[in-house]
Amino acid sequence: MFSFHVTRTCGKARLGRLSTPHGEVDTPVFMPVGTAGSVKGVTPDQLRAAGVRMVLANTYHLMLRPGAATVEKLGGLHRFMAWDGPLLTDSGGYQVFSLAPLRRIDDDGVVFRSHIDGSPVRLSPEDAVTLQRQLGADILMQLDECPPGDADKPAVAQAVRRSADWARRCKEVWAPQPTAATTGKYQALFGIQQGGTHADLRAASTEALVALDLPGYAIGGLSVGEGSEAMRRVLGWIDGLLPADRPRYLMGVGSPADILAAVQAGVDMFDCVLPTRNGRNAEAFTWTGQVRLRNARWTGDDSPLEVGCPCATCRQFSRGALRHYFLAKEMLAPTLVSLHNLHFFSAFLAAIRQAITDGDLASRAEAWLARMSAEADSPGNV
Amino acid sequence: MFSFHVTRTCGKARLGRLSTPHGEVDTPVFMPVGTAGSVKGVTPDQLRAAGVRMVLANTYHLMLRPGAATVEKLGGLHRFMAWDGPLLTDSGGYQVFSLAPLRRIDDDGVVFRSHIDGSPVRLSPEDAVTLQRQLGADILMQLDECPPGDADKPAVAQAVRRSADWARRCKEVWAPQPTAATTGKYQALFGIQQGGTHADLRAASTEALVALDLPGYAIGGLSVGEGSEAMRRVLGWIDGLLPADRPRYLMGVGSPADILAAVQAGVDMFDCVLPTRNGRNAEAFTWTGQVRLRNARWTGDDSPLEVGCPCATCRQFSRGALRHYFLAKEMLAPTLVSLHNLHFFSAFLAAIRQAITDGDLASRAEAWLARMSAEADSPGNV
Repeated sequence: MFSFHVTRTCGKARLGRLSTPHGEVDTPVFMPVGTAGSVKGVTPDQLRAAGVRMVLANTYHLMLRPGAATVEKLGGLHRFMAWDGPLLTDSGGYQVFSLAPLRRIDDDGVVFRSHIDGSPVRLSPEDAVTLQRQLGADILMQLDECPPGDADKPAVAQAVRRSADWARRCKEVWAPQPTAATTGKYQALFGIQQGGTHADLRAASTEALVALDLPGYAIGGLSVGEGSEAMRRVLGWIDGLLPADRPRYLMGVGSPADILAAVQAGVDMFDCVLPTRNGRNAEAFTWTGQVRLRNARWTGDDSPLEVGCPCATCRQFSRGALRHYFLAKEMLAPTLVSLHNLHFFSAFLAAIRQAITDGDLASRAEAWLARMSAEADSPGNV
Repeated sequence: MFSFHVTRTCGKARLGRLSTPHGEVDTPVFMPVGTAGSVKGVTPDQLRAAGVRMVLANTYHLMLRPGAATVEKLGGLHRFMAWDGPLLTDSGGYQVFSLAPLRRIDDDGVVFRSHIDGSPVRLSPEDAVTLQRQLGADILMQLDECPPGDADKPAVAQAVRRSADWARRCKEVWAPQPTAATTGKYQALFGIQQGGTHADLRAASTEALVALDLPGYAIGGLSVGEGSEAMRRVLGWIDGLLPADRPRYLMGVGSPADILAAVQAGVDMFDCVLPTRNGRNAEAFTWTGQVRLRNARWTGDDSPLEVGCPCATCRQFSRGALRHYFLAKEMLAPTLVSLHNLHFFSAFLAAIRQAITDGDLASRAEAWLARMSAEADSPGNV
């Protein structure tokens, strides 16, 4: 149904196995973002070929269009997006705070205007669970309040209090029937820790969440402008705060360097738009750093993005051809580089898991980071 | 190296086998258009899975960007676009006449301004061969002059005379070394018949071309606004004009109905942007007519574009999901419908070949056309 087991540790880093009604994944795991029900430009077959094992989709986008009821009518989100593996939906809260105009938040929930047609939309903690039950993902997230990285401490404290109360209300709706509307399969509710960069607030937030005994816990309110150093300080606290037997999910992170830091702090799950967003912007991730394909130096370059990379893009296309496709605005360009980037993130997480298995994460992490920053934009080698 | 054999006929329709240095294809064959070196939004793996066996690319686009010399440096067009099957390049002439501003044409060739940066470009018959030798496709096309569908007879006559002279000049450059610059593999030069809708000019054009004894002949100057009835009248002449032992290629056609008419007139090869252009515009081809996915009636429809269609799109996605992807401007939408349309055209040509084999093309063609027009935009069945 749903379970999580830590099978090995290396420092605070954990190797684990997450089981869901749609299959198992090894952790640490990275989830690409299927915003409106599709990982941009990438088919489910291509996702699988790129080593992707778990995907995230955004409740905010789907509730506005086509609507959770339509997704339910079309068989639920797995069927809708043709992804039969593990799937997680967020609660919609984060996008409301970052995308929607004219939002009003109070203890009951949030009211905002749709960024599509301007219509007013209400989202309460209970609504978030109901919507996600209609979508039917394997993991659903509580509604939380995510203050910006520069919010003052009283604002963060209020967000902590409110998010804890919303977690309780989400659980009250979820617990009596923790199953997807269309498929009847179990859905695991995750709580979300808030607290900004304040140790006491992170502790208070965790205490309230852990008392609810939820199947998993997320770390929210990071990667929101607080800076890398502050994020790492907060991550340093989480292994001591969150229970060891539950999966820990760092929302919206991130870069290879941030993922490495978070894994070494004890995080198990990640999601980020980086592989696909950067792919659309002609930026490729490689083991020797990022390659900017619009750079004129690649015009006549017949080498792949990464020598030895087994992804479909590197097996078939030269940097010169990829650069041309971007300049010619060919639709294939963002798809091909997204494919490579997704493969890179899969391979990167697999290497992290192997390093944990081998008990050698810290030294490998140091070597990887040195290589990625020293040789950026040079012809890569695996 | 290069050969063409008609293996069976049914009326004027021909079943054939075209052999090239990059493999064999059964004819009649449909070639999707890889404008600037990629079939828009579709990977080579997806092309093959959709049953595509031969592709066309546009010399005009590639000569302007990235430049034929760059493609040559990157290993030739097969390597560049990761297509290892049979490949045809046009001469660039058609796009010069339809896309380029400020063109000046005389007996020597054409001078135009690049639609990309406005720079002046010269294209002679000799240049067209040289450029296509750099690209390295299996079939290269002579430079021809393609007058618009409403050109008066003297203008068409001049285009016939000029195109015939250009065919001769192309052959003079090609014949001494009929091989691709990068790979050294044989390239077959095709001549292009012009003559508009005038029987005497079509005959004169053919006579001049056939005297050159080229490996294949194309029918140009159709699908340029002359109308379907006029096109069919012209097609009615071609079996009597063109030699039976050479492949016949109708450029820029077309719709399933036009393809059927042309096959029944003795045409072997086709190319058209319809499957991908219509796919990008949310229009799907099916055996029961075209489906417009933006239509609100598909909002909650869980059926595939075509029931029983084995393409990746129909196996995985509902009309409701595809409609959503178009409304949400998801990049995946044009790709998924292009994939289905490419598969449809492959399946349609395969059915035509089977009907020729069975000696039953005329009656099947009638039934197909009746079904495609009667049930358009209804839930389809194969």
